[in-house]
Amino acid sequence: MRAWPLVGSLPPAGPFLSACAGTRPTVTPVWFMRQAGRALPEYRRLREGMGMLDACRRPDLVTEITLQPVRRLGTDAAILFSDIVVPLAAAGVDLDIVAGTGPVIAEPITSPADLVRLPALDPGAVAFIAEAIRMLVTELGPVPLIGFAGAPFTLASYLVEGGPSRTHARTKALMYSQPALWHDLLDRLAGIALTYLRVQVEAGVAAVQLFDSWAGALCPDDYRAFVAPHSARVLAGVSEVPRVHFGVGTGELLADMAGAGADVVGVDWRVPLDAAAGRVGGRTVQGNLDPTALLAPPDVLARKVRDVLRRGLAAPAHVFNLGHGVLPETDPGALARVVEIVHEWRAPDSDAGPP
Amino acid sequence: MRAWPLVGSLPPAGPFLSACAGTRPTVTPVWFMRQAGRALPEYRRLREGMGMLDACRRPDLVTEITLQPVRRLGTDAAILFSDIVVPLAAAGVDLDIVAGTGPVIAEPITSPADLVRLPALDPGAVAFIAEAIRMLVTELGPVPLIGFAGAPFTLASYLVEGGPSRTHARTKALMYSQPALWHDLLDRLAGIALTYLRVQVEAGVAAVQLFDSWAGALCPDDYRAFVAPHSARVLAGVSEVPRVHFGVGTGELLADMAGAGADVVGVDWRVPLDAAAGRVGGRTVQGNLDPTALLAPPDVLARKVRDVLRRGLAAPAHVFNLGHGVLPETDPGALARVVEIVHEWRAPDSDAGPP
Repeated sequence: MRAWPLVGSLPPAGPFLSACAGTRPTVTPVWFMRQAGRALPEYRRLREGMGMLDACRRPDLVTEITLQPVRRLGTDAAILFSDIVVPLAAAGVDLDIVAGTGPVIAEPITSPADLVRLPALDPGAVAFIAEAIRMLVTELGPVPLIGFAGAPFTLASYLVEGGPSRTHARTKALMYSQPALWHDLLDRLAGIALTYLRVQVEAGVAAVQLFDSWAGALCPDDYRAFVAPHSARVLAGVSEVPRVHFGVGTGELLADMAGAGADVVGVDWRVPLDAAAGRVGGRTVQGNLDPTALLAPPDVLARKVRDVLRRGLAAPAHVFNLGHGVLPETDPGALARVVEIVHEWRAPDSDAGPP
Repeated sequence: MRAWPLVGSLPPAGPFLSACAGTRPTVTPVWFMRQAGRALPEYRRLREGMGMLDACRRPDLVTEITLQPVRRLGTDAAILFSDIVVPLAAAGVDLDIVAGTGPVIAEPITSPADLVRLPALDPGAVAFIAEAIRMLVTELGPVPLIGFAGAPFTLASYLVEGGPSRTHARTKALMYSQPALWHDLLDRLAGIALTYLRVQVEAGVAAVQLFDSWAGALCPDDYRAFVAPHSARVLAGVSEVPRVHFGVGTGELLADMAGAGADVVGVDWRVPLDAAAGRVGGRTVQGNLDPTALLAPPDVLARKVRDVLRRGLAAPAHVFNLGHGVLPETDPGALARVVEIVHEWRAPDSDAGPP
C-alpha cells in the first residue's frame, strides 16, 4: 500500500509516512541511521569474516541485517542495509570498503580522461538490491522500508580523494579549478544515484534518504553553485515517495537542502531542532539526538531525548532519529530505551497519553 | 607600546590591534592560522629531522619559525609557533606529537585517579616560550605578536581520547557520565591554559587566541553547561590584551563563544561572515576564507577573498584570516596573493583607494 502521494482522503499508513507527509501522528516515529550495523551483536556475528561489499551484494544477508534492528528495537521504519559506494562498485569503479578506514578507491579521479572509469549504472547490476527489497517488503508487512543513496558531492569526495578525507581539499580544488569536469562528474554521479534509487522505488521502498554526509564541508555559496542542482536532479526523479535529505554539519545549508527537493530534512545534533525547523520552510524535520548521548547514563539520555522531542514540535511533524549514525560502541539497550521514551512521549497539548 | 586597553585618546597601534578594539582601520589586517608551518619551504627545511615538541621548546627555532611568514608574506600579525599540547607536556603529561597523526597521549584520562597525572603548570616549565617571545617582540618591531593556548574542551578531548578523534565519543561519554570528574578536569586544564597565556602576556604578546578547535562537536546546551564557564575563566584572566576566541564548525555556538569573554570571534568558513557578524553581539569578527580556496585558480581565489571582505563589513571591524589553518599543500604564492588583495581592498564608502 503506497500512501504517497496522498490519494483522496486516505491517510498515510503509520506514523513514519504520516510524519513524512507533514501530518503529526499521535506517536512520534523513530528509526536510527545505521541501526542495521555494528552496535548489534547479531549483526557482528553475521558479518564475521565477510567483507562489507560481499555482504551488501547478498539479498539474503541484506534482508536479515535490515530486519535485525526492527525485530530487536521495534523501530517505525527499516533502513536498507547497504553502503553509499555500492552503486559505484556496481557501475564498475574499482573500490573496496576497508574495515576501520572506509571506502578506498583504486584510481582516484583527477582529470577528464578519468571519467571513462565512471560509466552509467546498469539497473541489472544492482538486481541484488531489488531482490532484497522485494523480500523485505513481504517480511516487514506494515513497517515502511527506507531506501537510500549517497548524494553526488559525497560520492565525488570519495572518488576524488581516493578515500575518506578530513578536509576534502582535493575535491574542492578540483571543483574550483576544473568546473566543467566537476559538473560532468557530479552529473554522472547524480545519474548513478538516481538509477540506484529508481531500482529501489520500483522494487517497493516506501521512502528514500539521500545522504550528503560531507556537504557540510562547503560554504553556502559553493553548495548552491556546485552541488545543489545535482542533488535536486536526484530528488526530482523519485518524487512519488517521501524524500529525506541529510548531511552532517549543515546548519547553514538547511534551507538549500530543503529547497533541493526534500520532503523531510535530516538535521545533525549541532543545530537545536527548533532552530532547524525555522530554516526548512515548513517541512518535516528528522533528527537529531547526539549519537554520543547513547553513551550517557539513562537519566541524561532520557532528558536529552525529551528535549529533542519538545524542540521537534516547532516543525509540522518530526521523525525522531540521531544526528548521525549509531556509533559501533553503542549499547543496544540504550537504543531500545530511546525507542521506548519516544513512543511513550506525547506532545503537551495532546491528551492521548503521558506527558 | 601596549595599546590595550585603550588609554586616553591614544589610538591602537596598527590595523590588527585597531580592528581588535572594534575600530575599522582603512586597510583590513590579515594573518593566517598556521601561517608558520608546513606550507613554507623554509619551515620544512628548518624542521627536517626534528620532532615537533623539540622544535617548540627551542626559543631560537620558535623565533625563527614565527618570523618566517611575516618576512615572506608581510602579514599584519605574527602568531607564536607552538602547539596546544605544549603546556600539557610542560606540566608533565606523557605525550608526543606524531607526524601525520597529531598529539598522542600515553595514558588517557578515564577516572578521577588519573587526574594526578595532570598537575598545575609551573610557569618556569615554559620559560622557553617567554624567552622566544622576548626575542620576537624585539625582532618584530611594530608587528604585533599573537600568543595562544588550547581551550579546556579541546585539550580534554586529546587527553580523554588519547589522540585526535572524529567523534569525541569517549570525551562526551565522560562528560555525561562523570560530570564531577569532567569539571575537575576542565578546571585543571583552564588553569594550565591560563598560566601558559599569563606567561605569554607578561613576556609581551600583544593579543591572544584561545583555540577551541573541536568545540563545534557540541550542541549549544552542552557547550553552555560543560565548556563555556571554563573557557570564560581563561579569557577573563588575560583581559589586558585583545582576546580572539576560535573554533571549527561553531555556527550555532558563536553567540556563546563571544559571551565567554572574547573581543574578537574567529569564524570558520561554513558561516557567511555577515551572518556570523549578526551572532556575536557587535564584536569584531576574524576569518573566514575556506582554506581550500588557496588551492583554486587566482581569479576564483581573488573573488572569494573579496567576498569575505565585503561580508566582513557587517561587523564593526574585521581581521582577515582563513576559516581554519593553512593546509600543508598550500602554495605560499597563494598566501602572498591573498595578503596583497586584502591590503589593496577598500570598503566601498571609503575614498582612500581602489574598490
